[in-house]
Amino acid sequence: MRPVLIGGEWRPAVSEGSFRAVNPATGALLPDEYPVSGMEDLEAALRVAGRVIDKFPALDPDRLARFLEGFAAGLEAKRDEAVTMARSETALPEEPRLRSVEFPRMTDQLRQAASACRERSWCLATIDTKRDIRSMYGPLGGPVVVLGPNNFPFAFNSVAGGDFAAVIAAGNPVIAKTNPGHPGTTRVLAESAFEALRESGLPLALVQMVYHCRPENGLKLAAHPLTGALAFTGSRASGLALKEAADRAGKPVYLEMSSVNPVLVLPGAFNERSERLAAELFGSCTSGAGQFCTKPGLVVLTRGARSEEFCDSVRRLFGGEPEGFLLSQRTFRKLVEAVAALERAGALLLAGGHALSGPGFRFENTLFRITGRQFLRDPDAFQTEAFGSLTVLVVAEDPEELAAIVRAFEGNLTGSIYSGPGDADRELHDLIEPILRRKVGRLLDDKMPTGVAVSPAMNHGGPFPATGHPGFTAVGFPASMRRFAALRCYDNVRPDRLPPELRDKNPTGAMWRYIDGEWTSKNI
Amino acid sequence: MRPVLIGGEWRPAVSEGSFRAVNPATGALLPDEYPVSGMEDLEAALRVAGRVIDKFPALDPDRLARFLEGFAAGLEAKRDEAVTMARSETALPEEPRLRSVEFPRMTDQLRQAASACRERSWCLATIDTKRDIRSMYGPLGGPVVVLGPNNFPFAFNSVAGGDFAAVIAAGNPVIAKTNPGHPGTTRVLAESAFEALRESGLPLALVQMVYHCRPENGLKLAAHPLTGALAFTGSRASGLALKEAADRAGKPVYLEMSSVNPVLVLPGAFNERSERLAAELFGSCTSGAGQFCTKPGLVVLTRGARSEEFCDSVRRLFGGEPEGFLLSQRTFRKLVEAVAALERAGALLLAGGHALSGPGFRFENTLFRITGRQFLRDPDAFQTEAFGSLTVLVVAEDPEELAAIVRAFEGNLTGSIYSGPGDADRELHDLIEPILRRKVGRLLDDKMPTGVAVSPAMNHGGPFPATGHPGFTAVGFPASMRRFAALRCYDNVRPDRLPPELRDKNPTGAMWRYIDGEWTSKNI
Repeated sequence: MRPVLIGGEWRPAVSEGSFRAVNPATGALLPDEYPVSGMEDLEAALRVAGRVIDKFPALDPDRLARFLEGFAAGLEAKRDEAVTMARSETALPEEPRLRSVEFPRMTDQLRQAASACRERSWCLATIDTKRDIRSMYGPLGGPVVVLGPNNFPFAFNSVAGGDFAAVIAAGNPVIAKTNPGHPGTTRVLAESAFEALRESGLPLALVQMVYHCRPENGLKLAAHPLTGALAFTGSRASGLALKEAADRAGKPVYLEMSSVNPVLVLPGAFNERSERLAAELFGSCTSGAGQFCTKPGLVVLTRGARSEEFCDSVRRLFGGEPEGFLLSQRTFRKLVEAVAALERAGALLLAGGHALSGPGFRFENTLFRITGRQFLRDPDAFQTEAFGSLTVLVVAEDPEELAAIVRAFEGNLTGSIYSGPGDADRELHDLIEPILRRKVGRLLDDKMPTGVAVSPAMNHGGPFPATGHPGFTAVGFPASMRRFAALRCYDNVRPDRLPPELRDKNPTGAMWRYIDGEWTSKNI
Repeated sequence: MRPVLIGGEWRPAVSEGSFRAVNPATGALLPDEYPVSGMEDLEAALRVAGRVIDKFPALDPDRLARFLEGFAAGLEAKRDEAVTMARSETALPEEPRLRSVEFPRMTDQLRQAASACRERSWCLATIDTKRDIRSMYGPLGGPVVVLGPNNFPFAFNSVAGGDFAAVIAAGNPVIAKTNPGHPGTTRVLAESAFEALRESGLPLALVQMVYHCRPENGLKLAAHPLTGALAFTGSRASGLALKEAADRAGKPVYLEMSSVNPVLVLPGAFNERSERLAAELFGSCTSGAGQFCTKPGLVVLTRGARSEEFCDSVRRLFGGEPEGFLLSQRTFRKLVEAVAALERAGALLLAGGHALSGPGFRFENTLFRITGRQFLRDPDAFQTEAFGSLTVLVVAEDPEELAAIVRAFEGNLTGSIYSGPGDADRELHDLIEPILRRKVGRLLDDKMPTGVAVSPAMNHGGPFPATGHPGFTAVGFPASMRRFAALRCYDNVRPDRLPPELRDKNPTGAMWRYIDGEWTSKNI
C-alpha cells in the first residue's frame, strides 16, 4: 500500500481500508493500492501544519515563489510519467488534452502563482499614513484543506492545481485530499512537490497529502478547530455537506459545485452562421466527453424556422459517434440516471440516450428538447447538472417566455448570449442581459463557456449554488489567492514590527500599494 | 402605531403586535408605539426590492453618491431632533458622545461612502486586454438585510450607519430592521433618508425599513430566495442563528458578533507609565458604560511587583462611581449573569460587581482578577463577552503561560500589545505576536482598542467567532463595500454592452483600474 505524505515524510497511512483506481477505458482495476486514511492521519496532518504555522508564521514570498517554480520545473521533467499515469486513470486523451493542454496549464498556473506571490500586490496593502493604520491580506493561520475534482487530473489537482497554487502563494500550508479517481497521478505530482520543497528550504510539512478518507471524516476535517479553510471542487451533494460542516464551525469554505451554463441563442444569431454555431455548441458540449464544469447543459432559443434548422443541425452532430470515455463508473451511472430523469420529466430525446457497450465507460452523445413551458413548469428537473456529453435544447414560445426562463435560472458559473450583428437583437438582449448578469459569474458574448483562461480578470465562480459565495474566483491570479487570506490590520504598530509589505519602504520597489487613496509602487 | 417604510411609502404595518422603547435612564416606557412586522411585510419589502433591481439593474454611481450626500446634509438639519430622540432611547450622553462624536461620524461615513461610490475604484475593475476578459465587483442582485446593534444609534444604525452606507454605495437596495432599542431614532433617520431619496431621482424603494419582527421571521428573511445578503451586528447567539439560516440558503452573511479584545501588557510597559496605562485601560473599559464591541474584556499581564502596582491602580479607578447607563434591561440582566458566571468560575472580584439602585439601568464598574492557570483551565468561561464596564485581569505566572493564554484565545476583533520602549520586551513580544496576530483582525501597539477610525486601512473584523469570515471589514471605505458585491466577469462582451467601468475609456478619468497587471487611471 502506498504511503501518505504527512509531517514532512512519506510514511505508512493509519488506514481504515484501501482502494484502487480504475482505468475508465477498460473498466479494469489498476495495480496500485492506496490507503483510506482514518482520523488519526488527518489529525496528525492538522497538528503538523499547526506547528509549521507556529514556527514560521510568515513564510518568505520569494522562497514560496521559488518553490512553486521549482515544482513546475520538476513536473516538466516528469511529464511523461505524469501523462501516462493520468491517461491510465482518467482515459482522457493524451493529445490534444493531457500532454499539450492540461499539463502546461498546470505548470503555467504554478508559475503565475509564483509571480503573484513574489510581486506581493495580491495582498492589497492599504496604508493610511495620517492615522498610521495599515492593513493587508495575509495567511489564514490554519492549513487549507483542498479537495480536487475528478475531471482535471492536472490543472485542478489538489496537489499542483489552481487551488493548491493559490493556497501556497498566499502563504498557507496545504492538506490535499486526492480525488480517488486519480491517486497515482496525484502521487506523481506530490513526489515532485516534495522534491521541490526539499530544495526550497521551506518547512517540509507545508504540503501534506492523503489519498482518501471516509465522507464523515471529511466533514470532521472541514470543521476541525485547526483547519484554516476548505477548498472543494466537485458534486453539489458533497459540496453542500462540506459547506454545512465548515459553516457551522465558522471556517471559510470555497466550493465549486454544479452549473448548467445556459447558452441563449437570440434569433439574429442564426443569420449567416447557424451551421458554425451548431458546431461550436457541439464542440463545447462534447469535448472532454462533456465532463467540464462549464459545459453548456441548457441551450435556450425562441421558436421559429431558423431555430428548427439549428436544432436539426445540432441533432445531426449529436448523432455521431462519441469521443472519449466517462471518468468513472459513478459518472456513467449518474448519466444514465440523468437521462431517465429527463425522460420522466417529459423531455424529448433527439439523439443518443444510451450506454455504449464496453470496454470502458462510454455513453452516446445525448440531446434532449423541451418547450419553454415545460422548463417553467419544472425548472429544477431541467437544471440538474448531467456530467457528460448531454445537453437540453429549450425552445421558448416568445421573448417573454425566454425572459421568464432566464428568471428561473439558478446561480451558474457562466451564461452565454449569442446575438445578431449590430442592433439585430438589441431589444431582446437588453431585456434578458440584466437578468442573466446577476445569475452568473462570467457572462460571454458570442462565445461558448468551455475553456477558462487563467487571467487576472477571470471569474470562475458565481452565485450559489454554482459556488458558495459570489465574491470569489477559483481561477486567475492574484484574485484566487484572496480566498485563502485573512485581513490583517496594524494600528499604531511600531515600524520595525510591521510586515515588509506595510513598511514605509516598498519591499520590492515594484509592489502596488493603496496609500492614502492612490495606487502606487513608491515608498512612503 | 407608527407606519413602516415599504415599497416607497410610509404605510401601516401588517403587524403581529407592537412594542415601545424604554428610556434606560428612567426605566420608563417611551410614548411611541411601533409595530412588529409579520412575514407579509417582510415579503412585500423583498418583492419590491426585487422589482427595483429588475427595473434598475445598474444604478448610476453619481446619483447614489448624491443621495448619500443629500442624506447626510438632511440629517445635519435634523441633528437636534435625532440627538434628543437617541438620548431618550439610549441614555448615551449628549456630549461628548451623541452630538459631537457619533452623529458626525455617521454623516462622515455617508460622505466617505459617497466618495468611494463616485470614485468607483472600489469595484477593483480588472482588465486583460489581450484576452478581452474584464471583471469588476457589482451589486449582489438582491436586497441586503441590515440589522443594527443597540449601542450605536447613529454610526451603526441599520439606516444611516456604516453597513447601510456600504450597501447603498455598492448599488444594492437596503431592507433595514431597526434595533428595537432605538426605533424612534431610526424613524428620524429613515424620514431623512426618504426625503433625500425623493430628491435623488432614485427608486423610492431603494431604502425600506421595518421596526421589528419575531426572531423566527428574521431567520426566514435571512434565508429567503429574494434576499441578496445579510449584515448583522449584535450578540453571538442571534448572530449564529442568523448565520446558520443564511448559510444553509447560500446567502452571503456578514456578522459582527462578540469579542473580548485582549490587551497584553508586557513587563517593560510598566516602566515610567504604569499610572497612565491604568488610566487608559480604565477609559477604554468604561467609556460608553463599556458597551463597545472593542472594549477590552481581558487584560493579561505576567506576575511581578509592577504588575501588582498596576492592578492596584486599576482597582482604585474601577472603584469610582460609574458614568452612564446600560442600554437596556436585557443588557443589565446579562451583565448580572456575567458577574455571577465569573464568580462561579472562580474569578476574584476586585471592584464593583453590583447593580446600582435606580432610576434607570446602572451597574458598578466591575473588575475581576484570575490567574493564568485559572484561565487555561476554563478559557471559554473567561472569554464570554460581558457588555458593560467589566474587565478581567489575568495574571500569568511566566512568559510561557502568557503564550499559552494567547494560544487559547478565540477569534477577536482586536488585540493590543503594550510593551517597553526599544528592545525592552523584544523576546516576549516576538513569542506572542505571531500567535496573537492570527487571532485578531486588528493588532494594536501601545494603544487601547476602543475608537475605530473610519479609514480605508481599518479592519473592523476578525476570525470567527468575532465575525463570520476573516476576510472582510465592517468599517472603512471602500473595503467594506466589497462585502455586498458579486464578482462579475465579462468574456468577449461587445464594447457597447460593457458597464462603463470596464470600457476602454476610463469613465471618470480618475478611477483606478488594474489593467494588464498595472494599477492605472488611464484609458486603454
